[in-house]
Amino acid sequence: MSETFVVVGGDAAGMSAASKAKRDAPALDVVVFEKGGYVSYSACGMPYYIEGTVEDLDELVAVTPEEFVDERGIDLRLYHEVLAVDPETRTVTVRGEDDTFEQSYDHLLLATGAAATTPPVDGTDLSCVFTLRSLDEAHAIRERLDGGPDETLDLDRDGQAVASFLTDRDPRRIGVVGAGYVGLEMADVLRARGCDVHLFQRSAHVLSGYDADVATVVEDHLRELGVTLHLGVSVTGLAADAGEVSAVETEEGSVPVDMVVVGTGVRPRTDLAVDAGVELGETGAIATDAYRRTNRPDVYAAGDCAEVHHVVADEPRYVPLALAANRHGRAVGRTVAGDPTVGGGVVGTAVTKVGDLEVARTGLTDAEDARSLGFDPVARTITAGSRASYYPGRAPITVRMVADRDSGKLLGAGMVGADVVAKRIDTVATALHAGMTVAEVERLDLAYAPPFSTVWDPVLTAAKVLAGALDE
Amino acid sequence: MSETFVVVGGDAAGMSAASKAKRDAPALDVVVFEKGGYVSYSACGMPYYIEGTVEDLDELVAVTPEEFVDERGIDLRLYHEVLAVDPETRTVTVRGEDDTFEQSYDHLLLATGAAATTPPVDGTDLSCVFTLRSLDEAHAIRERLDGGPDETLDLDRDGQAVASFLTDRDPRRIGVVGAGYVGLEMADVLRARGCDVHLFQRSAHVLSGYDADVATVVEDHLRELGVTLHLGVSVTGLAADAGEVSAVETEEGSVPVDMVVVGTGVRPRTDLAVDAGVELGETGAIATDAYRRTNRPDVYAAGDCAEVHHVVADEPRYVPLALAANRHGRAVGRTVAGDPTVGGGVVGTAVTKVGDLEVARTGLTDAEDARSLGFDPVARTITAGSRASYYPGRAPITVRMVADRDSGKLLGAGMVGADVVAKRIDTVATALHAGMTVAEVERLDLAYAPPFSTVWDPVLTAAKVLAGALDE
Repeated sequence: MSETFVVVGGDAAGMSAASKAKRDAPALDVVVFEKGGYVSYSACGMPYYIEGTVEDLDELVAVTPEEFVDERGIDLRLYHEVLAVDPETRTVTVRGEDDTFEQSYDHLLLATGAAATTPPVDGTDLSCVFTLRSLDEAHAIRERLDGGPDETLDLDRDGQAVASFLTDRDPRRIGVVGAGYVGLEMADVLRARGCDVHLFQRSAHVLSGYDADVATVVEDHLRELGVTLHLGVSVTGLAADAGEVSAVETEEGSVPVDMVVVGTGVRPRTDLAVDAGVELGETGAIATDAYRRTNRPDVYAAGDCAEVHHVVADEPRYVPLALAANRHGRAVGRTVAGDPTVGGGVVGTAVTKVGDLEVARTGLTDAEDARSLGFDPVARTITAGSRASYYPGRAPITVRMVADRDSGKLLGAGMVGADVVAKRIDTVATALHAGMTVAEVERLDLAYAPPFSTVWDPVLTAAKVLAGALDE
Repeated sequence: MSETFVVVGGDAAGMSAASKAKRDAPALDVVVFEKGGYVSYSACGMPYYIEGTVEDLDELVAVTPEEFVDERGIDLRLYHEVLAVDPETRTVTVRGEDDTFEQSYDHLLLATGAAATTPPVDGTDLSCVFTLRSLDEAHAIRERLDGGPDETLDLDRDGQAVASFLTDRDPRRIGVVGAGYVGLEMADVLRARGCDVHLFQRSAHVLSGYDADVATVVEDHLRELGVTLHLGVSVTGLAADAGEVSAVETEEGSVPVDMVVVGTGVRPRTDLAVDAGVELGETGAIATDAYRRTNRPDVYAAGDCAEVHHVVADEPRYVPLALAANRHGRAVGRTVAGDPTVGGGVVGTAVTKVGDLEVARTGLTDAEDARSLGFDPVARTITAGSRASYYPGRAPITVRMVADRDSGKLLGAGMVGADVVAKRIDTVATALHAGMTVAEVERLDLAYAPPFSTVWDPVLTAAKVLAGALDE
């Protein structure tokens, strides 16, 4: 009798695991339970759909449910919610469209993802307050901005619920709460659509994972683009008018708005795991070993519900990003198919687009964080041109690089600029994986030609300056 | 009495060394002898000056002679040719503008650079045959293309000699001999100026340092741009009409031309070194240790006249490129100033622009070369999108990656595409410096956001496919 691999959750980690397992072990029965109506979609692409750069919602779906079933032979069940896991009997309890049933498994992957957090204030459940954690929400936001229901779009039942607006106000002024990646991307695409955007951030700067040297470049650019920044301001509540959000209330006063997008972060969905006796780590996400195994036999966890190993910190961290989700899902798929495969660590690389700027980071960039791990962080910030001084398209790139004083080891970097920053951070990320010193980074043989770089790439210049500071 | 540091040659390596030495040890007398009229200029920028993208020749000069003298305190002597070095008496013999004299030194840097090679055929010394090894030649080519002497430009005596055309033909059809970086860049900028370009290459493909998988993408693009390729064709001579070049003659016939640019490579200028008893390596360039010291006491060599240590091959190689020249010059400057500093190795990273394409390489990509070093090379080629499938500006990137079968060690890669290839090769270069395996590259935490990458960057996809091939 063939074995059964059950996957809970049909996004990046879940569908990567299902696809790889079925491909490598065609005899395996692979069953995926997804409580919503979509699988394998690009959450990172939703802001660009709202912007209108991406025309159709369908474009964000990498592989359709039909393709998973018909072409990949995966038993994919949409609108199926897993209610409980019993690791003793190796069964999951599932609520389907018509009934609740049990499904046995030989291998189980928990890929339950993350949920958006909201600030602990009144009003976050009002109509026209969104968090952008699903295609349905993206759909509803764009529909609202486009001025009413788009009849050409096939709204599913979750979407219809979200999109049932109480009024038909034209959302001209929009409050964005939280200035992390989602908040900045939403502020950017909404202002690109001509909205009057007010961005609220509790701390003094946008992008908490970045130093002020980088964050202020982003802030200046946002202001140039016409976004009103409310930095160092706590949101105390959301006010309503006729049941819909009408103002963002802060300790400094009230700002009238027609819509609110909350981007204050995510938390791992772990209820199912906890109920099944699966251990969480200190971060609150599911703890796993290098093979993505939890403490329960044959139960794996991957994606935004689980911890990852941070290579520089050398400890588990909660870094819910797409690449690790895909990669770890794929590793579980190989393992389940009979080829034990490690998921691999992360260095915390991330990038986003804000207007004309690319903003990227990797590694440990926060001094306090680095010190808590026993490092003595030294940082330097440089600004240098992206191309030869005489070549068109040159733009300044600001690089803040951090290293450990004693060992000279590279710890991380933040970077911002309008010309090829996203792929420059990869050089730093690769150096972090390799455990390089700043002196070694300074000596890297990077590509130079006038249209693409200066002789000393900004990454090398940053390393040169930081190495000089370490010598002092 | 203060010490004297004498530098022979005022380009990248020489001026980097002089500047760093004087900065770190202000009491040092730093004397630079440059036989031409320019120092510290961007040879790599010359094609873009000829194209017209760079308007003035002056823009290619990073630091002027006056700045070196007045601001950096360097005793820079233009039009001074060093005729001989006597390591026994620590003196150099110099021919200046008016006389020949001796200059003693405590430290000497040979930074004599490289000379363009020409094919061993008749006619390479004809008027209107250029090699693009000096600003004077760049100036002369552009002057010719612009239709006569440009009175606004200050032509120096070498330039005047080069630019003394015998006729006033309008150069519409141009032969480019050699399809390396200089040849391709010149073919590209000349066709961008509207010239009818014929590119001649003895081997079957352009860019000998690349595999056919990458080269053919470049060839197809060149043809689209209207360049006529003569591949696998040996040039047998250059014919003349009224003393100026009039045709490129090949074994397959004669192609009439109005101008010829020869880009068949460079050879290190070593005559001075050889006469002084400085040893050359097997490559024919000056041999040095990690500190750029030659076999003669206190005689250093850096830049295009010297070998560099190739990290992947783990042997000296001749790789005359700008970054190593600058870096090694700077290291010599520090060393001479009292802080012994290694120059650092290279991995052979290079990039060029051909039309809309970025073409880049790093490491060992030639199978025969890899085998001669004891590796068992395995290569795979993939083509993948540069950005998310739904994001505008996405372009295909072709990556050919090579690894050693037994160790799984990454050996090198070639890459071509129209969207951010130059800085993607840096990831591979960094991995080569770190001695990573392909499996380690596959697990790198690289940056992802829809405007800049796919979830699996093309570099990761290439590593994934190659790792799969190594498993077979």
